Amino acid sequence: MNFASDNIVGASPPVLDALLRANAGPKAAYGVDDVSERVAARFAEIFEREVAVFPVTTGTAANALALSAAVPPYGIALCHQEAHILLDECGAPEFFMHGAKLVGLPGRDGKLAPATVAGYVDTLPKGVHQMPPRALSVSQVTECGTVYRLDEIADLAATCRQRGLALHMDGARFANALVALGCSPAEMTWKQGVDILSFGATKNGCLMAEAILVFDPALAESLAYRRKRAGQTISKGRLIAAQFEGYFADDLWLANARHANRMAKLLSDGMTGLPGVRLAWPAEANEVFPIVPRSMDRALRAAGANYHAWSETGLNEGDAVGEGEVLVRLVLSFATEEADVRRFLDVAAASVRAQAAE
Amino acid sequence: MNFASDNIVGASPPVLDALLRANAGPKAAYGVDDVSERVAARFAEIFEREVAVFPVTTGTAANALALSAAVPPYGIALCHQEAHILLDECGAPEFFMHGAKLVGLPGRDGKLAPATVAGYVDTLPKGVHQMPPRALSVSQVTECGTVYRLDEIADLAATCRQRGLALHMDGARFANALVALGCSPAEMTWKQGVDILSFGATKNGCLMAEAILVFDPALAESLAYRRKRAGQTISKGRLIAAQFEGYFADDLWLANARHANRMAKLLSDGMTGLPGVRLAWPAEANEVFPIVPRSMDRALRAAGANYHAWSETGLNEGDAVGEGEVLVRLVLSFATEEADVRRFLDVAAASVRAQAAE
Amino acid sequence: MNFASDNIVGASPPVLDALLRANAGPKAAYGVDDVSERVAARFAEIFEREVAVFPVTTGTAANALALSAAVPPYGIALCHQEAHILLDECGAPEFFMHGAKLVGLPGRDGKLAPATVAGYVDTLPKGVHQMPPRALSVSQVTECGTVYRLDEIADLAATCRQRGLALHMDGARFANALVALGCSPAEMTWKQGVDILSFGATKNGCLMAEAILVFDPALAESLAYRRKRAGQTISKGRLIAAQFEGYFADDLWLANARHANRMAKLLSDGMTGLPGVRLAWPAEANEVFPIVPRSMDRALRAAGANYHAWSETGLNEGDAVGEGEVLVRLVLSFATEEADVRRFLDVAAASVRAQAAE
Amino acid sequence: MNFASDNIVGASPPVLDALLRANAGPKAAYGVDDVSERVAARFAEIFEREVAVFPVTTGTAANALALSAAVPPYGIALCHQEAHILLDECGAPEFFMHGAKLVGLPGRDGKLAPATVAGYVDTLPKGVHQMPPRALSVSQVTECGTVYRLDEIADLAATCRQRGLALHMDGARFANALVALGCSPAEMTWKQGVDILSFGATKNGCLMAEAILVFDPALAESLAYRRKRAGQTISKGRLIAAQFEGYFADDLWLANARHANRMAKLLSDGMTGLPGVRLAWPAEANEVFPIVPRSMDRALRAAGANYHAWSETGLNEGDAVGEGEVLVRLVLSFATEEADVRRFLDVAAASVRAQAAE
Repeated sequence: MNFASDNIVGASPPVLDALLRANAGPKAAYGVDDVSERVAARFAEIFEREVAVFPVTTGTAANALALSAAVPPYGIALCHQEAHILLDECGAPEFFMHGAKLVGLPGRDGKLAPATVAGYVDTLPKGVHQMPPRALSVSQVTECGTVYRLDEIADLAATCRQRGLALHMDGARFANALVALGCSPAEMTWKQGVDILSFGATKNGCLMAEAILVFDPALAESLAYRRKRAGQTISKGRLIAAQFEGYFADDLWLANARHANRMAKLLSDGMTGLPGVRLAWPAEANEVFPIVPRSMDRALRAAGANYHAWSETGLNEGDAVGEGEVLVRLVLSFATEEADVRRFLDVAAASVRAQAAE
Repeated sequence: MNFASDNIVGASPPVLDALLRANAGPKAAYGVDDVSERVAARFAEIFEREVAVFPVTTGTAANALALSAAVPPYGIALCHQEAHILLDECGAPEFFMHGAKLVGLPGRDGKLAPATVAGYVDTLPKGVHQMPPRALSVSQVTECGTVYRLDEIADLAATCRQRGLALHMDGARFANALVALGCSPAEMTWKQGVDILSFGATKNGCLMAEAILVFDPALAESLAYRRKRAGQTISKGRLIAAQFEGYFADDLWLANARHANRMAKLLSDGMTGLPGVRLAWPAEANEVFPIVPRSMDRALRAAGANYHAWSETGLNEGDAVGEGEVLVRLVLSFATEEADVRRFLDVAAASVRAQAAE
Repeated sequence: MNFASDNIVGASPPVLDALLRANAGPKAAYGVDDVSERVAARFAEIFEREVAVFPVTTGTAANALALSAAVPPYGIALCHQEAHILLDECGAPEFFMHGAKLVGLPGRDGKLAPATVAGYVDTLPKGVHQMPPRALSVSQVTECGTVYRLDEIADLAATCRQRGLALHMDGARFANALVALGCSPAEMTWKQGVDILSFGATKNGCLMAEAILVFDPALAESLAYRRKRAGQTISKGRLIAAQFEGYFADDLWLANARHANRMAKLLSDGMTGLPGVRLAWPAEANEVFPIVPRSMDRALRAAGANYHAWSETGLNEGDAVGEGEVLVRLVLSFATEEADVRRFLDVAAASVRAQAAE
Repeated sequence: MNFASDNIVGASPPVLDALLRANAGPKAAYGVDDVSERVAARFAEIFEREVAVFPVTTGTAANALALSAAVPPYGIALCHQEAHILLDECGAPEFFMHGAKLVGLPGRDGKLAPATVAGYVDTLPKGVHQMPPRALSVSQVTECGTVYRLDEIADLAATCRQRGLALHMDGARFANALVALGCSPAEMTWKQGVDILSFGATKNGCLMAEAILVFDPALAESLAYRRKRAGQTISKGRLIAAQFEGYFADDLWLANARHANRMAKLLSDGMTGLPGVRLAWPAEANEVFPIVPRSMDRALRAAGANYHAWSETGLNEGDAVGEGEVLVRLVLSFATEEADVRRFLDVAAASVRAQAAE
């Protein structure tokens, strides 16, 4: 019953198989090998257009490099005030952007509203004393486990375009959002106006495979250099490329994401059916954020469940975690076994009954 | 007959096996898993002392991060004027060091002499107009395929210590140098005064496994943060750790390096036995830099040999490549097959005979 | 009636005189001339201890350089959420600190409470995902025109010391705070635990004279280099030094500050005596922040008064600016003429009467 | 007899007068005052075109900011290997350019030849392992006291344009070069293809007045922000602006430069007329670099002459300073008195006679 994160498991077997297959024989270094080239073509196919693809080794690097291509050192990148890039990257974006600033804005359910973005940008004094906003970064899936709808993305994109902001999508859980919406990768990104995407695959079945996808050609220009000088151009490029090959083959990535989301649905339905349990935010992808009685939390941990207590700073206005409650995060992955979810629900239900009996 | 580099092949089978074994089951993310901990302990054992270990994804990152821990943004890191960090990293050290400068110094056979280092540092004006030197970086194996002897390292270290410079070793081909010298890892590093080491394993049998090893505790302090903000802390840490586990098991790393060096010896002995061929620098590890007749170069390439022509800028004073000659680099690796080397030598010898017959 | 800022006037005549006197004859460049040396000695005398003095050309540079000496590129500098360094420097601190982050915290009357600082630092997760706080910057006078009392500074300093934070004071209006408290420079700084000070003189009678004063010798080490590479080491150092000489002579600086504060008292007493006017924050130095009826604002501007409407984001909890009101900032300086203040008050009073008559 | 530098004297009296005149009354801060606006218009007049003007406080900042507008963090700025920006700025360009690299190239008499620039750029490998050159910086007057002719500038500009490099001119001694060539400011800059200029006035009669002039509008875009975040936007902008006003009035700047150059001619003619004295490089502006007998050097210093011994690294190929000789730099300025030059020559001549008598 380990729901601590979706990066606690290894790779999907087909991903490993692809890696083994790509291991044999000499290949050109630094990502100009045949596997890397096939993968680049595959990305273009999947996204239904030409796209510049820059594989990198971590989501941290993908996000920070992507932003560095869009924001000058004296600019601002806007994001949600709960954004991973703002709170959990040890300043990687600021490092890669050479001191540009991240500004976190509020928003319900981990999402930013166009009016909030517009309000911030439009009321900022327009002199040299204030850094000019140049990009907006949204997380899809959000840090609250919710998913931006297509029209929400389109509205944000329009807001950005009118103000000269590039739109970046942090897709650490891209596939989970995609299958939640039931749309195509193109529809979730450039067709709505996304300029640059961090495409994550590590959490959903790879060992380490992330890529920056650039839809606005002007942003691609500097990235080959930026990636190299950031130590993100790996010599045996087949390592990342082969993982992507296995990831895309037979739509493994979509199947993996569907499984994770289905497990999340099972878990959130089960939990919300219990008295005293409610969700902090809707569970729309592969993460569930229930607020549970402390007694239930204790019972679950006693039974061996592994998960993180979560920060209350992202709660919607008016919401609060009570004295006897705790907000927790449960992450489901391609590798989650249904039996584990059911056992977790059983323990939770038993805890409710035990409390009622006291 | 592919001698283009030692990063054109995949991983040694035992390294892949270790990766497969480590794939199963949940493990804590970000390098605090059991495999990572075993590997850290193994490094301490191999280096015969406590050592801070920071696995990273590329040699570029290892060198740049290591230097950033030793050199303030207003300082200078000295290196050989042919150093990889100076010429081939797209400015990664300058990026990670926040604008600190690399200064390249001359030296025979790709090596720096203590007097050269001392001469530079001691004659630099000591005001605020000049950046103060704070580190020296040496490559072991050097960019000319030579290997610093232990007393040479010790002398450089003493020169550094007297002048407040940290001593960094770029060990992209650490194992090849080690077996060339026939000494222990401790002897080649901290026992001579090396403060911080980029320990490379990718070229010698891994897919992507590099680590920064810090012997001077003062330099370790900032590296955990610096690594994270550089996007070099990978979430599924087992990926790198498992490779090291396979690399060290049964001394695979030493066997791999011995094989590569033996292949280089076979090749350099064979080449220098041919009339009209000479070495630009002694072949002391797994690289051979012959100066060959253009006719031989053509014959080899026609026979399918793959290797790089090399820059003449590193030639020792007084040496030159003649009109009808070309300087080339041949890199041998753990995966080089002896038959390929012998075939290469046969083609070269046949070319000599053909030229003589004309 | 120009109360727009204290940087809209030129220099006090004695400051200009000192500059003229220092103009003659050759002097060593880059701040090692006799005037610069006399000024450094004078600072030591005024602050009753050895102190490293680094004259710079702007307050922006003074603050950003000071923080860069205290905070590593991966660290955090805390400040009030209304701090000038956070909102009005176009990212200078982030530039000089190489991407380190500024985090703004809330606090009544523009002041930070020790508990707020402690609360932030102590609840921040202690892993590599979060940047570690390494400095606190306080503004004395604050951005709300208030002044930290000595015990408040001492308490903040203790809070910092227990957590490994350096304490920086942004003294853009140092003299105004000093005469408000009626204490000595030493008492307002290092005796309470301030480690590094931006000593501003431009606003209080110079043309351009700022200095970084370092009380913690460990922070001084890098500043000579940092200042030079920031283009802040001016060649004809006498320019800044001579201004300081004129500024300190006959305690001109204290007289100037006392005048400005007295004018502010006159203005705030007059304003708060009018019905419908209240202060957003106590007027403790040379700035007054009244909330006035819009009709009064119109009348004042019609009469030629010059001042800025001010942001409401810094209002204390529970306070608000009403529909028919506006928050404005009035800054008094060494050059403010009492007649201008009295005329301003007359116009304001007349506006009240006119409104009452309607 | 102080020939140590042209920054050892204060300001020309008319410059000080202008400063005094500009001191009175309130003026808008941050360089939008009337004096600043007049000065910007005057620059446009002098340069015969629209030009973006950014006053800054030091030549260090002017050069570093100018380059930061032209070179991305992963790029290279080329310059002469004796360039001030490379050797004497404590890494300011690297700081402002966020780690971009300066590469020094050789050239006779402190000048770069187009073929040298072309050779470097054209032979550099065009991959991501090497930083791409994006700017060339030339010093006019050069570090060897010589002056680029107009056709030489035009040829360099053409070489740059063909290769996508911006052309920057470090005009720390702009006026001295200008009067040496007897051309107009427009002719020496944008009419030959200069894109961005550091216009120095401090050495030639101001106390601290430098400006970045941008002829290529694309390079101007970011500079307002970059200057502010570098702490180079001074609040009482009249300080710099007024100096420029005095500097340009009645062509003071040209008269000052002519005087300095005439003094240099007098000195160099006198020195080269003495046996045993020769010039390291032609004295074309206000600096003279004679190689003199050590006995003469001792005699001059004994007589109270003040000047710097100079580095031999810039000597032309084949030249050398003999055992009994020393290379020195003599700088003449607007404030140099002819009597001092004559006395210096007398002492030098007497030394020759004394040696002959021995």
